[in-house]
Amino acid sequence: MSQTVSHAWVLKRRPAGRITRDDYDWVEMPLDAPKAGEVLVRTVYLSLDPTNRIWASDMAQYMPPVELGEVMRGGTLGVVEASGDENFAVGDVVQGMWGWRSHALQPAMALNKLPAQPGVPWDAYMSVLGATGMTAYFGLMDIGAPKAGETLVVSAAAGAVGSLVGQIGKIMGCRVIGTAGSDEKCAHLINDLGFDAAINYKTADLGAALDEAAPNGIDIYFENTGGPVTDAVYPRLNLNARIPLCGLIAHYNDEETGEGTPGPKNFQMALMRRALIKGFIVIDYLPRFPEGIAAMAGWLAEGKLQYRTDMVDGLENAVEGVNRLFDGANTGKLLVRCSEAPATP
Amino acid sequence: MSQTVSHAWVLKRRPAGRITRDDYDWVEMPLDAPKAGEVLVRTVYLSLDPTNRIWASDMAQYMPPVELGEVMRGGTLGVVEASGDENFAVGDVVQGMWGWRSHALQPAMALNKLPAQPGVPWDAYMSVLGATGMTAYFGLMDIGAPKAGETLVVSAAAGAVGSLVGQIGKIMGCRVIGTAGSDEKCAHLINDLGFDAAINYKTADLGAALDEAAPNGIDIYFENTGGPVTDAVYPRLNLNARIPLCGLIAHYNDEETGEGTPGPKNFQMALMRRALIKGFIVIDYLPRFPEGIAAMAGWLAEGKLQYRTDMVDGLENAVEGVNRLFDGANTGKLLVRCSEAPATP
Repeated sequence: MSQTVSHAWVLKRRPAGRITRDDYDWVEMPLDAPKAGEVLVRTVYLSLDPTNRIWASDMAQYMPPVELGEVMRGGTLGVVEASGDENFAVGDVVQGMWGWRSHALQPAMALNKLPAQPGVPWDAYMSVLGATGMTAYFGLMDIGAPKAGETLVVSAAAGAVGSLVGQIGKIMGCRVIGTAGSDEKCAHLINDLGFDAAINYKTADLGAALDEAAPNGIDIYFENTGGPVTDAVYPRLNLNARIPLCGLIAHYNDEETGEGTPGPKNFQMALMRRALIKGFIVIDYLPRFPEGIAAMAGWLAEGKLQYRTDMVDGLENAVEGVNRLFDGANTGKLLVRCSEAPATP
Repeated sequence: MSQTVSHAWVLKRRPAGRITRDDYDWVEMPLDAPKAGEVLVRTVYLSLDPTNRIWASDMAQYMPPVELGEVMRGGTLGVVEASGDENFAVGDVVQGMWGWRSHALQPAMALNKLPAQPGVPWDAYMSVLGATGMTAYFGLMDIGAPKAGETLVVSAAAGAVGSLVGQIGKIMGCRVIGTAGSDEKCAHLINDLGFDAAINYKTADLGAALDEAAPNGIDIYFENTGGPVTDAVYPRLNLNARIPLCGLIAHYNDEETGEGTPGPKNFQMALMRRALIKGFIVIDYLPRFPEGIAAMAGWLAEGKLQYRTDMVDGLENAVEGVNRLFDGANTGKLLVRCSEAPATP
């Protein structure tokens, strides 16, 4: 087996505010053939997620930060090109976390071989059937505990997680309201995903719009953003409201002030309405993934769940691509296509 | 039975910031003899609590606000002076919520007759065995879920609720740290109540003091205050920290800005550490009061729980008295003695 060259993004310095091209080095790394227990993978899809901004910082976080000089962390899907492990064969499609690089040598135990399911394209494992889908499913079902007839508000509702949360909310019989950053996204939420109402947070009077869309108050707020949407939601919380705290993307690019991310205004409502606020990370639910994947795959097969992929072409465009999240430019799951995908089974 | 005169504090206008004498009228109200099903009570103790400030405002809250022209709301303990109900006799000691007045006619079903327990003074029912004690017990045990060896931080720890929370935490085997507003209170927490550490939030470098007092981070933060203590606690939360949200007294006198109470700075830590924040009101636990009272009475009898009463003499001093809470002047449960208490059984 000849030597392979991997192209990779290596973190050079901590971003200040927005991630820029100069925060990373684009490097070439030669890779040897896999030794026993190792597998050589070619990256097909790289997942871009809001948490990338956190990993690139050295703030206190739920995993160690990416160290300077390390390949940038990221969820990946790829194809086995050479294998030193009996459980993996050339051509197998695998999932892992080998980061922002075109090829990688990985210990076999760090890889998860994916099943070929007829009609399920491989990118589904990077969204609706992957960590994104499980974040939506467990955050809403376990913490949000939706009941038919309740009102659910989802921020960043046109994003990868939010668009699934809203659809699951509809399946559970909730009135579902999404916030998003453009009229086009709002139309998508209502017309394509079946939301009851959508609010353009950049142009609407948020309080008045919520009063109109949620006349009976808000029972569940799926929190992806923080910021003005959150500040307008809190005064409208109902008794015993639940707030799955999934993300605070509105603040990830804040300059370091030493004061961190500001909490919600009108925070007294968490007390007055006896709200439950629970931070969570999808890996908390790893043991229950089979339950979540079965539920999501079932709804997908029944045509009750739709998902979109926002595809950036070429690993060399990953840095520019990740900022689509913070610009609100993406609709649905943001992925980088690093090389040609295997055909849908 | 001759006519009785009740003296009462009636809400005249909504306080702006601090409660003042001019926000209330001091009035005389004649009371008739009780009709069938009614009971005439003489007030012995009136409870003063931080939530009085909320009730006097017209902000969204967990009960309807006190209306202008109404007698101010408050928890009360008194003695039956005349009864039109077979379940109550002259001399019975009863608890209720007849508010800031010297005498009241109450429907019998709004009263709770207290047992005469040898050695238990009547004011205990207004603190350790009353709503205050139940707030401490259920907030800590049900939401905080303390485990031996964990670190518990309590704000307003020399207050009525906080001082009990810290002692229950010690009984449960936690390392307990309290914050309070004077060196005298801090000494009381350590020397009299057995806290492991106490921090004067007015003079300490809160971050450094917490780092020293809680070297293993904070597992439970019993939230009574909001403000600078909270802002310093959040960066030090451990994974799966629990935050019973009991009060936000640091903000109750804030001028209305339309933005309400600011949430904690460093709010991202609720996400990063997957914290649970749960607002609660003691009445949520009403069905479980017997369990809580039994536990607290047991610890009291074993000498494991101490409580202090900060007594204001005379109902005419209630308005000045309530500000002791916001000035941090009280240690322990703040009560008004409105008339002579029956002897301890």
